[in-house]
Amino acid sequence: MQVATTIYAPIEERLARVEHSLKAMPEIRSDFLAKLLSHVFDTVGKRTRPALTLLSSSFHDHDHRVTEIMATAVEALHIASLVHDDTVDSSSVRRGRATLNSLWGRNAAVLAGDYIFAKSATYVCDTGDIRVIRRFSETIMELSTGELQEMSEAYNGAQTMEQYLERIYNKTASLFTTACQSGAILSGAPEKQVAALKEYGYNLGMAFQIMDDILDFEASEEDVGKPVGNDLSHGTITLPVIIALRQQSEANPILALFDSPEDASSLSLAVEFILGSSAIEESYAVASDYCRAARRQLDALPDTPARASLEELVAYVNAMRA
Amino acid sequence: MQVATTIYAPIEERLARVEHSLKAMPEIRSDFLAKLLSHVFDTVGKRTRPALTLLSSSFHDHDHRVTEIMATAVEALHIASLVHDDTVDSSSVRRGRATLNSLWGRNAAVLAGDYIFAKSATYVCDTGDIRVIRRFSETIMELSTGELQEMSEAYNGAQTMEQYLERIYNKTASLFTTACQSGAILSGAPEKQVAALKEYGYNLGMAFQIMDDILDFEASEEDVGKPVGNDLSHGTITLPVIIALRQQSEANPILALFDSPEDASSLSLAVEFILGSSAIEESYAVASDYCRAARRQLDALPDTPARASLEELVAYVNAMRA
Repeated sequence: MQVATTIYAPIEERLARVEHSLKAMPEIRSDFLAKLLSHVFDTVGKRTRPALTLLSSSFHDHDHRVTEIMATAVEALHIASLVHDDTVDSSSVRRGRATLNSLWGRNAAVLAGDYIFAKSATYVCDTGDIRVIRRFSETIMELSTGELQEMSEAYNGAQTMEQYLERIYNKTASLFTTACQSGAILSGAPEKQVAALKEYGYNLGMAFQIMDDILDFEASEEDVGKPVGNDLSHGTITLPVIIALRQQSEANPILALFDSPEDASSLSLAVEFILGSSAIEESYAVASDYCRAARRQLDALPDTPARASLEELVAYVNAMRA
Repeated sequence: MQVATTIYAPIEERLARVEHSLKAMPEIRSDFLAKLLSHVFDTVGKRTRPALTLLSSSFHDHDHRVTEIMATAVEALHIASLVHDDTVDSSSVRRGRATLNSLWGRNAAVLAGDYIFAKSATYVCDTGDIRVIRRFSETIMELSTGELQEMSEAYNGAQTMEQYLERIYNKTASLFTTACQSGAILSGAPEKQVAALKEYGYNLGMAFQIMDDILDFEASEEDVGKPVGNDLSHGTITLPVIIALRQQSEANPILALFDSPEDASSLSLAVEFILGSSAIEESYAVASDYCRAARRQLDALPDTPARASLEELVAYVNAMRA
């Protein structure tokens, strides 16, 4: 599913400048590093996060260069985290392109990811705003904490909804929050609007990750490039799994899968069990609650094309089903 | 060889507070991450880099908390880079302790390193000085660039002295420079002294890395915990190697080693060749030049116990031989 182009209409030119800055990142002395960076920055993403920064900055007149730098940093940080995630997961393909780790090895991918993290932080320094710089570093901490939690909590059928929500905040909603909050701060928005856009980003990010976790069960490999139940097969316990485990504590096919994760038929039995239960619909209801909460925050903002785009983004996330 | 305790005398109490802050870093919500961090921060290092920050800050009255935060960040950054280096090199022991990657796997080590990088950056934000924050992020970029250069330039016998010097600046002297420069800036030193301490750190760092590269040939496994010629056996071309390659371009045992790196006798032949040449003494002369340049910068500073310690550190590096 593609983001409707109308959503980005109010920031089209600005997003093009951000895209240009991203493409310019590999212009550095080291040939080897330049080659690695070119490969990563040539990949075309949905650019959701920098769009959030630019849209959130659109409610006040300000020096656009500052928020475009911020949007560039936000996307670079996202890309750095994808490079390390793909390395940790030994993924070979991302958005139809071979990953860094598959082409140049894990070691080069670890170091190139480090470089992009640091480069994104130097970009944020150019905004000159210490509050934003600090929040950005905290976001990098939260991203790595989320990935570590996913690793340490894998195959643990006893984990709680609270653990899941904390993990997806760290993994996903943290950067959505930072993208919106920093755009608002750097545009000179009053604190009430900064708080509303921060809450909007938080709720949109939580909804986005829950929908993504639902798609792991609902979407075919053709839709999302990953086999059905891919997260579950790696022991990652998402919201549908937590709900389905709660519904049947004995002889649950999910626990049987965790006992013999190598067995392909265990995976399909567990997926069938989840799809046959009410877990997907209940998960969707939780995601929709977050979407509504995101939508409500927009009432604090004037009715502009940027606000309409932020509303459309909520609708997009709420409809992210296969 | 241990750093003489007299060198740290002027900053003993302050360094103890930095040590305390480092030990407190694992106090966080995630149990798994806390376990990883405790393991890393319990290791006792020489604390050369935070000592440089504190000594460099000692020439002007200022709020000591700010420079202690900076010293903590500098050491945390060093530790983060060691975690990733050990992961990339698949090292199993560091300073007599098992590495994170050997105990909890490479993936956990990559993510824990990311967390520590980001945590060190949030510390620097607490200094409130954007110039220092920016320089710190650039240092992370330089550290990862240096490691990538080491990787891409391995086994390349045609590399130049210039490439070597750029690489050891990135790998080592960059952080020495930042440690000294940030201590000076945050103590409120005038720009002339900031420049002198920055140059001091740069030259000391270059000398330190060259001496370390000489020790790869001169020191026994008992001295440094690594077999003789360890860097060379991984194709890392250091100053003694570049000089020895220049002295004999045909039938050079180093090139024979690069042709068959798995052959143990090739390694000992190459090491013997280097030790039998003038390459070690010539490398030592280059390191001593950097030491003298570092020493000269101290003339710009008043004659205090801190300056005496910085002088002693130069003497220590200049005498870092097996």
